[in-house]
Amino acid sequence: SARQKLAEALSSQYGLNVFVAGLLLLLAWAVHASRVAKSDLLCFLTALMLLQLLWMLWYVRRSAAQRRLIRPKDTHAGARWLRGSITLFAVITIILGCLKIGYFVGYSACLSATEGVFPVAHAVHTLVQVYFLWGHAKDVIQSFKTLERFGVFHSVFTNLLLWTNSVLNESKHQLNEHKERLMTLGFGNITTELDDHTPPCNCSSPTLCSAISHGIYYLYPFNIEYQILASTMLYVLWKNIGRKVDSPQHEKIQVKLHGVTVGSALGLTVLAATIGVVVVYLVQIGRSKTRSESALTMFYLYAIALLLLMAAAGLMGTLLYRLDEQSLDESKNPARKLDMDLLVGTASGSWFLSWGSILAILCAESRPSYTWYNLPYSILVIAEKYIQNLFIIESTHREPELSEDIRTLRVVTVCNGCATPLAASYLKGGAGGVASLGSEVPPANCGSMCLRGGGGGGKEEGTGRPRFLQGDAKRRILRNIAAFLFLCNISLWIPPAFGCRPEYDNGLEEIVFGFEPWIIAVNLAMPFSIFYRMHAAASLFEVYCKI
Amino acid sequence: SARQKLAEALSSQYGLNVFVAGLLLLLAWAVHASRVAKSDLLCFLTALMLLQLLWMLWYVRRSAAQRRLIRPKDTHAGARWLRGSITLFAVITIILGCLKIGYFVGYSACLSATEGVFPVAHAVHTLVQVYFLWGHAKDVIQSFKTLERFGVFHSVFTNLLLWTNSVLNESKHQLNEHKERLMTLGFGNITTELDDHTPPCNCSSPTLCSAISHGIYYLYPFNIEYQILASTMLYVLWKNIGRKVDSPQHEKIQVKLHGVTVGSALGLTVLAATIGVVVVYLVQIGRSKTRSESALTMFYLYAIALLLLMAAAGLMGTLLYRLDEQSLDESKNPARKLDMDLLVGTASGSWFLSWGSILAILCAESRPSYTWYNLPYSILVIAEKYIQNLFIIESTHREPELSEDIRTLRVVTVCNGCATPLAASYLKGGAGGVASLGSEVPPANCGSMCLRGGGGGGKEEGTGRPRFLQGDAKRRILRNIAAFLFLCNISLWIPPAFGCRPEYDNGLEEIVFGFEPWIIAVNLAMPFSIFYRMHAAASLFEVYCKI
Repeated sequence: SARQKLAEALSSQYGLNVFVAGLLLLLAWAVHASRVAKSDLLCFLTALMLLQLLWMLWYVRRSAAQRRLIRPKDTHAGARWLRGSITLFAVITIILGCLKIGYFVGYSACLSATEGVFPVAHAVHTLVQVYFLWGHAKDVIQSFKTLERFGVFHSVFTNLLLWTNSVLNESKHQLNEHKERLMTLGFGNITTELDDHTPPCNCSSPTLCSAISHGIYYLYPFNIEYQILASTMLYVLWKNIGRKVDSPQHEKIQVKLHGVTVGSALGLTVLAATIGVVVVYLVQIGRSKTRSESALTMFYLYAIALLLLMAAAGLMGTLLYRLDEQSLDESKNPARKLDMDLLVGTASGSWFLSWGSILAILCAESRPSYTWYNLPYSILVIAEKYIQNLFIIESTHREPELSEDIRTLRVVTVCNGCATPLAASYLKGGAGGVASLGSEVPPANCGSMCLRGGGGGGKEEGTGRPRFLQGDAKRRILRNIAAFLFLCNISLWIPPAFGCRPEYDNGLEEIVFGFEPWIIAVNLAMPFSIFYRMHAAASLFEVYCKI
Repeated sequence: SARQKLAEALSSQYGLNVFVAGLLLLLAWAVHASRVAKSDLLCFLTALMLLQLLWMLWYVRRSAAQRRLIRPKDTHAGARWLRGSITLFAVITIILGCLKIGYFVGYSACLSATEGVFPVAHAVHTLVQVYFLWGHAKDVIQSFKTLERFGVFHSVFTNLLLWTNSVLNESKHQLNEHKERLMTLGFGNITTELDDHTPPCNCSSPTLCSAISHGIYYLYPFNIEYQILASTMLYVLWKNIGRKVDSPQHEKIQVKLHGVTVGSALGLTVLAATIGVVVVYLVQIGRSKTRSESALTMFYLYAIALLLLMAAAGLMGTLLYRLDEQSLDESKNPARKLDMDLLVGTASGSWFLSWGSILAILCAESRPSYTWYNLPYSILVIAEKYIQNLFIIESTHREPELSEDIRTLRVVTVCNGCATPLAASYLKGGAGGVASLGSEVPPANCGSMCLRGGGGGGKEEGTGRPRFLQGDAKRRILRNIAAFLFLCNISLWIPPAFGCRPEYDNGLEEIVFGFEPWIIAVNLAMPFSIFYRMHAAASLFEVYCKI
């Protein structure tokens, strides 16, 4: 209706303004604008969180009061595994909050009170928000839309701002570590001032404080994932407001673990190997010039091998899908559309960095031998994401396949149904006609068998296809590929999230582009690149459950 | 089908990679990366343009060969006035190309050959592209989709890169002017090196060269608009590939000029006044400290008055729409959706700058009196865009209203039709039922009258509404508002496009955020802010024609 369009525009513009104002505060803090202190920023964030808390409590209360009403649900939104993983990340975020409170107590002599209030507010906010998402992520809100829209969009952008804040903190930390390494290596001339390193007073118990500040930086990556996950779930909730839900199908996603030994064994090996490589890298880098170079070489060689494997697996999966022209699941689905846009959008972040590396290698004046590995690495990063996105998009748009025996049953049903008048539209309309029967039959298979049974001269598709690729065998291969890629993506999330960033340590790009511009570019693009890995893993998990 | 989803993902990822690689080259040039010269960038852009040229020629040839086939068209895409304005901008772009060739000839001693090849290639590209858009902007491509998708997306991102390139050139020019002003005012300490100012040799005829380089910078804003307009039209073409067009309605948009004397007179006054203010501003600014301050004060006061007027007009328009609950035009329409997203998205650019100004005023240590005008100005910029977007979104989602006599005719037709079986669904389904009748009747009006005639107890809406606001009178007011806002937006496009940028000259933000960060922020956000004005004007023109 007319009101709805206006409410949508009103709330999205409000949300954007909140976000932009927050970004400005973050920018002001990052560039050390005069008279903008960290406490101003934290006050602003705390106020946003409190506002969101109030709204969530109001919403939960109101929907509890209306429990008798039947409310439509979007079965695609807020899948159980998604809520499970957000809970896991939320628990780590709360632990992080406790550590921050401990840190504040240690340095309480010189930190402003807001640095103590903020983690407390954040922990409460996290608790309530996870409760809210468990209960209401699937809601399709149909009444009082304006206020709900404002609340949901406020929540989306509050989480995005908290994400940006975490990312900025993490970037500053990474940059400080990088500068320390450069100083150790004797490159003190580039720039040596450390930024927000430690508060300007002594901790009441120094060993505890240093342990806490180490702990904080190992937990940050999980907090970052939590914030972005929460905002995507809230965004889907926003998109669903006032939507007409077509059919309340109950898709039960179940994790089938049999028959994926190869894929998961390979994947777990990769996971273990990656953790090993990252540990060696972090120990070696910055100790001395030769040890840094050997660490970089090791990382590049390992990553090249892994990316090759992943690209091959993704390509094989896509080709397997190409073999049969099954119709697509065309139903409207905001959750899926957002997932696909995020995959392609966030991949751009890492493409940006990779093209930067390629350009730097082509333009560099002197190229030490280890920098040459950077070229195939960067090209493979681009190609692997390209192929993997194709595989995921192809998979998520397929209708879930049924196992062989159920399919036979269905085919019999439909063939019997050919005698009824409905069959006319089915034979004419193809896929569309079958959908109108309301069953979940994969149309292509049914079509050919039905026609064959009825003696029709339909196209005999699939005759040239090798027998072993059909049905369960094909499905098992695809499931292995999905499991392997899932574990690989989790593996590749680890290095950049925990400080193994060859884009910093490589040195080549910094010389070509200059230290400042390249560091800014990395700090802007890296969060998206890290998010891509986690998001691709989530999408692959969904693909795996569906196959 | 399955192939389509894959082709979409393939082409969008290809396009993003081209764009990201181009951005990297631009960044490398902007930060003076070692061994990346301007000629590398121009080579890359020329190659992209040639590739697009080849594709366009192939497409035009192929569709000429298939002229007998009936091809569906999207009547919403590529409206005539849109093609008209793109032609106007293209002509100016070609003139700009000629000036650049002249500039190259003048400085040919020290410029590389690519600087001469690029404008020639660009002029040819512009000519062919405008021809292509005239003939094919409305196409809904249904065959050979993969190649077409690649071609169209390549074109979209080629134009976006050309846009970015122009924007970068323009920003450098503005920054140089700003630095020159600062030097005149004695602030030589901030930074004094001019960037890419003039080639390192003498022109063969100095007066001609200086005239040309002045001319170039007055024509740049039009070139920038041309590029972005072309990419949006091509993007709509891409979105339309493989789409099923619902109904080939022939919407004839006609410009009705009677009854808008007040709105257009006010608007033209504003346009004239703005040009006057900009000229005075450009003459005064940077001459001396007091003259700069008086120029800034004048600009702020004028802008505050104008923005207040515009916000009031927008608010009045939105409220007038609120008065009747007419149903919305819900048909799928990629062109419109893109327009709305662009409006809200590009407004964010100027919101970012405005929040920056607000923050700067709040945090500044000393505030000269003229900077206080910046606060209401910034708040009004935010509010005015907020309201104007609401007005445009509200308007474009209305079905076109019919004039009083046609409407009466239609009502009679439908009321007679109530006797037919179709009426049952109409009475039940409300708006949806009417749409299925296939006519363009505004459902709310028809509904109440029809029910009244049939003796039904329907809601008697509109009884409390003053009579003079109905029908033609209301329409005339709305049309006046649209005309006024259209001219105001064109007026407000002029100051930032032609170098009247108080964000630079004001000095306050530069002190709070630091010179470099603020200049980078302005240079990133300003292009979107400028684009917003032109785009809002285009949308308002469409609104005006529809009312």
